[in-house]
Amino acid sequence: MIPKNHPRYESLILRERIKNAYKDGYLADSGMIAHGRGEAFDYLLGEKTTVTAIQSIEVSVAMLLLAKNPVLSVNGNTTALVLKEIINLAILTNSKIEINLFYRNKKRVEIISELYKKNGYNKILGTNNEKLKYLGNIQSPRATASENGIYSADLVLVALEDGDRVEVLKKNDKNVIAIDLNPLSRTAQMADITIVDNIIRAIPLMIKTISKLKFKDENYLKDIVNEFSNERNLKLSLKEIEKNSFIK
Amino acid sequence: MIPKNHPRYESLILRERIKNAYKDGYLADSGMIAHGRGEAFDYLLGEKTTVTAIQSIEVSVAMLLLAKNPVLSVNGNTTALVLKEIINLAILTNSKIEINLFYRNKKRVEIISELYKKNGYNKILGTNNEKLKYLGNIQSPRATASENGIYSADLVLVALEDGDRVEVLKKNDKNVIAIDLNPLSRTAQMADITIVDNIIRAIPLMIKTISKLKFKDENYLKDIVNEFSNERNLKLSLKEIEKNSFIK
Repeated sequence: MIPKNHPRYESLILRERIKNAYKDGYLADSGMIAHGRGEAFDYLLGEKTTVTAIQSIEVSVAMLLLAKNPVLSVNGNTTALVLKEIINLAILTNSKIEINLFYRNKKRVEIISELYKKNGYNKILGTNNEKLKYLGNIQSPRATASENGIYSADLVLVALEDGDRVEVLKKNDKNVIAIDLNPLSRTAQMADITIVDNIIRAIPLMIKTISKLKFKDENYLKDIVNEFSNERNLKLSLKEIEKNSFIK
Repeated sequence: MIPKNHPRYESLILRERIKNAYKDGYLADSGMIAHGRGEAFDYLLGEKTTVTAIQSIEVSVAMLLLAKNPVLSVNGNTTALVLKEIINLAILTNSKIEINLFYRNKKRVEIISELYKKNGYNKILGTNNEKLKYLGNIQSPRATASENGIYSADLVLVALEDGDRVEVLKKNDKNVIAIDLNPLSRTAQMADITIVDNIIRAIPLMIKTISKLKFKDENYLKDIVNEFSNERNLKLSLKEIEKNSFIK
């Protein structure tokens, strides 16, 4: 048990969830290392959602509401940290949820799919190895896609993902929203919208933002999306890290 | 196998070593997460040893050469990354090596001790649970010390260590050299000298620096140590991260 007065309490609770996900068998060892990277970048952000992240979240929600076939791509880390929130986001934006694992194996896919079922979500995609297609000619688990999900999606949201994956998606003309704490990462640079924030804060804020945008007309949402520049967004995110962490 | 032309090749090789240490049974799951944090901070440093780090390395070597009973404290992460280099550093500076583990258990201690033996080092301390003392009244594995090693040391070098550990050492009047990639961490703030660098580069550079300082007289070394301010060192390290990563 982590004492509630520990200076790093919140962060240690998330770390426990990640360790449990590994013990439960659905997170790869690399997923633990990836979580550590996230801890470090979030530390530099002051573990707060920045004004810039709030703006990119608003644009992301507008893009999700405009999309014809949006898919939320999940892996072991996102499942360990925000399973229930992902389900809510999918329902509220008419998005599908699809499992995509860097280190894909049958057992991990089964456990993750069971976890979604236990939480009332029975429609998860990307579970049947035989029926998966590959995006392009890349025979990598990163390029897998279910026919009605990522393969035919116009918009894919990825979180805690590697750069190669986003490259595959972009080559296949998908719009990509990435949630990534490192504004310098290849993922962050390649996505159409990068939310530089911890998913533990970003997904709940996306859900809140839906009620704000749900009844706006299409042109209003399109304007928000068109005005957005990810390059500017990433520059501002870097400046905010700088301001939070370095100028004391 | 990681292809040599992968843009993150060097970093991925270290990650493999950490994963193997976990599989071999001497690294805790938290050690993997800690490695991820290190990856992120090193990324922000541009994965290079900064001028400031070079200076703190020089002062550290002077301090090691001046110490009466210096001890290099090792854990799973340091063993996985720089086992041979630690042995060389110990021999060249007349330091002892002692095992100190956050998640201490018999199996991990045995495996690590065997690894040092296999590499020709038979004198490793901190292996016998029954004979360990505690620094102060803190009954934590972090506070363990062998009688002739850390317990009676005047200088302890710690790498990839947690803040609580350094606090225990400082309360017991030890001089502490810390190698830590995060200049804002409690470890970095509490140590007497903090080398803000990846141990994979820092330890070999310490070894090189010995030949430069070994034949200097004691007063020369003392002057180097006395002129050093860790506060200034950490401020400069932050500025260098800023310069490397943020001002493009």
